[in-house]
Amino acid sequence: MLPWDAEMAGQLHRETITSTLLQGNPLGDPHERPIWVYTPPGYSDADTRYPAVYVIQGFTGHLAMWANRSAYRQPFPETADAVFASGEAPGCIVVYVDAWTAYGGSQFVDSPGTGPYHSYLCDEVVPWVDARYRTLAQPASRAITGKSSGGFGAMITPMLRPDLFGALATHAGDSLYEYAYVPEFAKAVRYLRPYDGDIFRWWEDFRSRPAFSGDGDGTLLILLGCSACFSADDDGTVRLPFDPVTGELVPERWQRWLDWDPVRMVDTYADALRSQRAIWIDAGTRDEWYLDIGAQAFRAGLSRIGVPDDRVHFELFNAGHGGIDYRYPQALAWLAHRLER
Amino acid sequence: MLPWDAEMAGQLHRETITSTLLQGNPLGDPHERPIWVYTPPGYSDADTRYPAVYVIQGFTGHLAMWANRSAYRQPFPETADAVFASGEAPGCIVVYVDAWTAYGGSQFVDSPGTGPYHSYLCDEVVPWVDARYRTLAQPASRAITGKSSGGFGAMITPMLRPDLFGALATHAGDSLYEYAYVPEFAKAVRYLRPYDGDIFRWWEDFRSRPAFSGDGDGTLLILLGCSACFSADDDGTVRLPFDPVTGELVPERWQRWLDWDPVRMVDTYADALRSQRAIWIDAGTRDEWYLDIGAQAFRAGLSRIGVPDDRVHFELFNAGHGGIDYRYPQALAWLAHRLER
Amino acid sequence: MLPWDAEMAGQLHRETITSTLLQGNPLGDPHERPIWVYTPPGYSDADTRYPAVYVIQGFTGHLAMWANRSAYRQPFPETADAVFASGEAPGCIVVYVDAWTAYGGSQFVDSPGTGPYHSYLCDEVVPWVDARYRTLAQPASRAITGKSSGGFGAMITPMLRPDLFGALATHAGDSLYEYAYVPEFAKAVRYLRPYDGDIFRWWEDFRSRPAFSGDGDGTLLILLGCSACFSADDDGTVRLPFDPVTGELVPERWQRWLDWDPVRMVDTYADALRSQRAIWIDAGTRDEWYLDIGAQAFRAGLSRIGVPDDRVHFELFNAGHGGIDYRYPQALAWLAHRLER
Amino acid sequence: MLPWDAEMAGQLHRETITSTLLQGNPLGDPHERPIWVYTPPGYSDADTRYPAVYVIQGFTGHLAMWANRSAYRQPFPETADAVFASGEAPGCIVVYVDAWTAYGGSQFVDSPGTGPYHSYLCDEVVPWVDARYRTLAQPASRAITGKSSGGFGAMITPMLRPDLFGALATHAGDSLYEYAYVPEFAKAVRYLRPYDGDIFRWWEDFRSRPAFSGDGDGTLLILLGCSACFSADDDGTVRLPFDPVTGELVPERWQRWLDWDPVRMVDTYADALRSQRAIWIDAGTRDEWYLDIGAQAFRAGLSRIGVPDDRVHFELFNAGHGGIDYRYPQALAWLAHRLER
Repeated sequence: MLPWDAEMAGQLHRETITSTLLQGNPLGDPHERPIWVYTPPGYSDADTRYPAVYVIQGFTGHLAMWANRSAYRQPFPETADAVFASGEAPGCIVVYVDAWTAYGGSQFVDSPGTGPYHSYLCDEVVPWVDARYRTLAQPASRAITGKSSGGFGAMITPMLRPDLFGALATHAGDSLYEYAYVPEFAKAVRYLRPYDGDIFRWWEDFRSRPAFSGDGDGTLLILLGCSACFSADDDGTVRLPFDPVTGELVPERWQRWLDWDPVRMVDTYADALRSQRAIWIDAGTRDEWYLDIGAQAFRAGLSRIGVPDDRVHFELFNAGHGGIDYRYPQALAWLAHRLER
Repeated sequence: MLPWDAEMAGQLHRETITSTLLQGNPLGDPHERPIWVYTPPGYSDADTRYPAVYVIQGFTGHLAMWANRSAYRQPFPETADAVFASGEAPGCIVVYVDAWTAYGGSQFVDSPGTGPYHSYLCDEVVPWVDARYRTLAQPASRAITGKSSGGFGAMITPMLRPDLFGALATHAGDSLYEYAYVPEFAKAVRYLRPYDGDIFRWWEDFRSRPAFSGDGDGTLLILLGCSACFSADDDGTVRLPFDPVTGELVPERWQRWLDWDPVRMVDTYADALRSQRAIWIDAGTRDEWYLDIGAQAFRAGLSRIGVPDDRVHFELFNAGHGGIDYRYPQALAWLAHRLER
Repeated sequence: MLPWDAEMAGQLHRETITSTLLQGNPLGDPHERPIWVYTPPGYSDADTRYPAVYVIQGFTGHLAMWANRSAYRQPFPETADAVFASGEAPGCIVVYVDAWTAYGGSQFVDSPGTGPYHSYLCDEVVPWVDARYRTLAQPASRAITGKSSGGFGAMITPMLRPDLFGALATHAGDSLYEYAYVPEFAKAVRYLRPYDGDIFRWWEDFRSRPAFSGDGDGTLLILLGCSACFSADDDGTVRLPFDPVTGELVPERWQRWLDWDPVRMVDTYADALRSQRAIWIDAGTRDEWYLDIGAQAFRAGLSRIGVPDDRVHFELFNAGHGGIDYRYPQALAWLAHRLER
Repeated sequence: MLPWDAEMAGQLHRETITSTLLQGNPLGDPHERPIWVYTPPGYSDADTRYPAVYVIQGFTGHLAMWANRSAYRQPFPETADAVFASGEAPGCIVVYVDAWTAYGGSQFVDSPGTGPYHSYLCDEVVPWVDARYRTLAQPASRAITGKSSGGFGAMITPMLRPDLFGALATHAGDSLYEYAYVPEFAKAVRYLRPYDGDIFRWWEDFRSRPAFSGDGDGTLLILLGCSACFSADDDGTVRLPFDPVTGELVPERWQRWLDWDPVRMVDTYADALRSQRAIWIDAGTRDEWYLDIGAQAFRAGLSRIGVPDDRVHFELFNAGHGGIDYRYPQALAWLAHRLER
């Protein structure tokens, strides 16, 4: 296969969804969003209905990045296509959802700081797809998958909406926030020293020059973005969960973050998790955010609440946080076999 | 501007060039290559001829990657378009050339290990463009630019062919090989221990699993690729410039590499360099390959041979080797002002 | 000055103290401890009484290490002597205390996991010194200083015993445990994987081979040691504050650690802190344990409780956690001027 | 054994040697040097003569540092004593030599930049020891051992003086300078930018403030010191082997360094090496200076020139460059068994 392009056996429909919920969102992000819907080989030949797998992205991801090419690897839409084209797994509809924001992401939650992205996904995107494509419109036939913040979204969305999603895959999904985020707070205190601890002064600077040309840009962007998602005031004012000068945690805000830690949510949403047919969890053993440990804790939580082992795939592999897109088609194939059809 | 896409003021023509020279190349790489030719705003309104800037890529780069999108930045074809659309610089034709090989790159040289990529660029691509687009087909109106291995290509090609190229820009271009490559040889010895020092056993392994899932993949690929470019036997057999077990340099092979060090080529090609109208050199002060030091040495070489200071732009900036694509349009604008029209 | 040795102007008395409190300590560590008492130049010429500065060590430090020499630097006992010999500050008695344990340290607290080191320091060492040397035996004339865990001890001991200590200096003292320790828990989970999460299996291994020849040795030792100090059961059983397999914090144990966080202790011990005449706080801006941020938080706490600014010296400087012994004599001189005499 | 001290079975004689050769050395370093001579258990009970093992230090090492203590490890003079006290190996005299200079070391060579340290070692120290202690004064009974620069000295000294030394041990000894030193040149160019490329301006700065409080201090000191040893002019002027602004190697100076590369010296000194009874070579597989690769190359060189395998111990082990002192007694014991007595 040439590196420049590939022919796909199925078909990728690049469409636009007009969201009502995202209108007037606090960051002024577009409410018309791109959405790609993949239909597998044979889709147009018959009137079979298919399970659907929703694919969401990590922080700073936006939909067009799925088309990015790199050396010696194919983009996921192509490797996903190959899963079905090769007969490795039965066909699914695959839905690539955009939930980007000006701060780099939405964490797929409803927040006054960013907008109602959870509701957009569940109450607008899913019905939109079901109305236009021959899906099997039931949780047992609907999965969600993602990496990093996308893995987080893939964990929490079925917890909140088991009436919609009955299977999930998380690759290095955000979890155990004391390990994933707390060290970043410490780094942020240092990065904010030149800005007198004011993250909005950094943000202004960030927008005025080439993005990511400052050393702390990556760290500060994620913290600003997650604060907008997790600890914004009702009026949308974004609040950091720590004092940016002394580093001290602000307990009530930090608790709001912890309330969104998938590991800590397991017991509250035990019924929803027990209703899932298939749960794929993996992460690299050298994940820079320690998400391998979060994966272990989430896995242990599933055991604790009684999710049967045969519904869970758990795997740690030798990798860091980056470059693990080759895992996605593996989880996709595994899910495709387990979704009801 | 939305992150997903952009409208361009000029036009990007995505074409294919059929190379005679690349037919039967030793790695079996395609001789039909994609090529993108950008024409600036106003191109189709008149019969003006334009200078042309050839853009070449770094190691592991292939043409389709110019379309890759990332958060908070636009792809170079769009930022390049903005240079002309904004009036920052007068219009140029911009030619995006593909010189990828199965080993990750060609270094834009003719080698029995990879193929005649230098000749392909100079004797096939340039005439092909001149025949199809309204270029000013003279060296004073033709520049070449690139980053990393592309910066290397942008340095050596005008040295070898001043009859074709009269201006260049190198961003963190490969140079001072003792700093850029020698430390990699040491790492390679370690990475090759599990393969008993046999880089082709590693290559076989690399091709059998997800690319870059092994720790040493990046280092070993570059060394294999550059060996194919710089120190292959006449029959195409690739030879490393060091003993893969003891690390000792193999002097005659290493000398073949050094013969391609732009810093060491300056005196030999002094006339060609003195014929250039404009030479842009930059690099990040934290470049992981120490290419900032190579940039300093190349700059000092230009002074030594008497290239006037007013033809040279030299700049070190705070960055590593990655994420510096925001520099490309700056150099493009600078060149556009200096090319004859 | 030659690198090998130095003559001191004052006198260093190397003695042994026999502790009653440390007899039968749970780790079987010696209850006879070395103690060094420095008397300044002129001490033996008159019957003047002097302030006393107690010097305690960081984790894994034991008394004999104060004699260690390195290139281009003098040991602290010599640079401390120079402070007085040069006239930079008026003479003090300097007491070098040993509080080492088999797990690397005692954190200068009373714990069923290690022994009553706080009481040993306060109720045995201090009276022992006062009985044998011409100290001014009052808190206004007694200071304590240390680095890292020694800085921690220097913060907490005057909080607990303002009747003994009226001044302190902390160099990169342990504080803000979410930044200093929590990331270490994550690392420990990984390091304990080969030991099935059992830190005592690691400890057994550690004792059976050259110390620190395993990658995780440093991290695991500190966590074992601090667990022995902060979260041991009443019977001395050491408990980690996190689940070594899933990484999840064990709230009640982790709270016991937090109860020993100097930043969190400020309000409880506000009176004791307000009674201090002089408080020196410093740390390197690149401290690997983020103790610069802890220093900022501790400093801010002092302001909050109303410690006057003129009693506090606060300074961040360009350094990591190591190699900052050149700071000690600076703090010593500053304290020497502020102790009552 | 308590961490603070140890009783030794043998005896360590701390003496001073007055060198004639070092008088008037260019750096003004003392010509009276400390020297420690260890005599094994039983030495004073009979008139047996013993083999002698000379121990030399790495860069920045000076003699008093052998007494340094650290947690969980004993100083080498104590672990060396234990080798003989335990009966693991037959007794040897162990001679701890000082060859420190103001620039951090002498590399145990004669240089107009530092002084005649090779001659001092061979023509002054050895006869001085033989005259005062009951050594077996012949090469078959005299070994030399060291780590890092000390390992380098242990390789080259027997090459130059097989009439004196008949066995050696090198732990991570300097070798394959393209890997050990060349990357440091690149770092030095960067570190010297604030000093306009003038290493003596850096040196002046270094001497005016706490040593090693600047980021590049370690790198620059070694390069200054090794330049003084390897590429000084006849009048003692120190010359760097690279242009400190452009990084370009200065071929004739760099060649002088390479002439001192043990790997490159093997063929020239083949007879001397073939005369050795025992050669121990080891290094850590993660050595920061790639000295594991140098060790492999040196080992391969011995095979090439026909040194029988049974005279060589070669071992790579999991470690970096630091903290490998636990290897020293292993080599000492191995040598002790192989020296003639």
